[in-house]
Amino acid sequence: MAYKKTDFPVANIRRFLEPGPIVLVSSAWKGKSNIMTMGWHMVMEFEPSLVGCYIWTENHSFDMVRRSKECVINIPTVDLTAKVVGIGNSSGRDIDKFAEFGLTAIAGAKVNAPLIDECYANFECRLVDSSLIKRYSLFVLEVVKAHVATSPAYPRTIHYRGDGVFMISGENTSRYRKLFKPDRL
Amino acid sequence: MAYKKTDFPVANIRRFLEPGPIVLVSSAWKGKSNIMTMGWHMVMEFEPSLVGCYIWTENHSFDMVRRSKECVINIPTVDLTAKVVGIGNSSGRDIDKFAEFGLTAIAGAKVNAPLIDECYANFECRLVDSSLIKRYSLFVLEVVKAHVATSPAYPRTIHYRGDGVFMISGENTSRYRKLFKPDRL
Repeated sequence: MAYKKTDFPVANIRRFLEPGPIVLVSSAWKGKSNIMTMGWHMVMEFEPSLVGCYIWTENHSFDMVRRSKECVINIPTVDLTAKVVGIGNSSGRDIDKFAEFGLTAIAGAKVNAPLIDECYANFECRLVDSSLIKRYSLFVLEVVKAHVATSPAYPRTIHYRGDGVFMISGENTSRYRKLFKPDRL
Repeated sequence: MAYKKTDFPVANIRRFLEPGPIVLVSSAWKGKSNIMTMGWHMVMEFEPSLVGCYIWTENHSFDMVRRSKECVINIPTVDLTAKVVGIGNSSGRDIDKFAEFGLTAIAGAKVNAPLIDECYANFECRLVDSSLIKRYSLFVLEVVKAHVATSPAYPRTIHYRGDGVFMISGENTSRYRKLFKPDRL
């Protein structure tokens, strides 16, 4: 699927990350690029736009993100599920994942890590705190630039349950909006 | 909705948290209990079963969890959405949320914080690392006991996008399971 994308306010990317989709993390280091599949992440702040990510020490991406201090969080939609699984199955030590999975690397605006063109959204990130990597494999990233598809308003994302089971995002509803206090939205 | 629940392996609770639902955090301190709505959380480890949670300093629950060093992560289903919003709108400084929202407090097996009976799952947690609270409002919790509904296998959960919009969890599929390498499930 080819998405037409536009700039999106980095303080609002919780719209796409807080619902908990599987994401693809792309990185570059010393002329090589890589992609990993990631399910353990959380929004940590609106401004600066912080995201916490767990990257296992055994992932090839671990050193690439740690050393380059940059990456891109890409949000795949359900049409990419087989590729997401394939990316999680394989290691960047052995293959070029962009080539192997037929994905298109696009240059970032603020980071050297490549964006995955086929994804619904791309969040360019800088590693702003590496002090929790040793203890928790936790990378604290700041989203410095966000590119999001102009349509649809909400993507059909995939959410991992373990054991080979994905939940696919369902209906989006604003029917409860009127119940919120304005400062609690 | 009344769920019949059974013990569930704490190392497998990612099945319910990794897809990113809104959760209710219940706590108790000095004879009072409270509930908060939380969307910023992540799985951090299988064993011990660690979960990272962002609790804003302004939440009444912030001090209750920090001081009691315990809480329960409860997973509400879509039938509870209006109550979830109401809980997020209000403060435990002003009201007793169990009474106000007609929810049933059940005693935990390993913690003093109460379980919310109406929720699909209840994860009893101990605060195992408070060193990141000051910098990031990040509570590192260990799930020490899990109670999960015996049916359905997967709950219809609500996932927050901000701006009053919820995504409701959709189809669960294992059709991609055969693509996984066994050690990558």
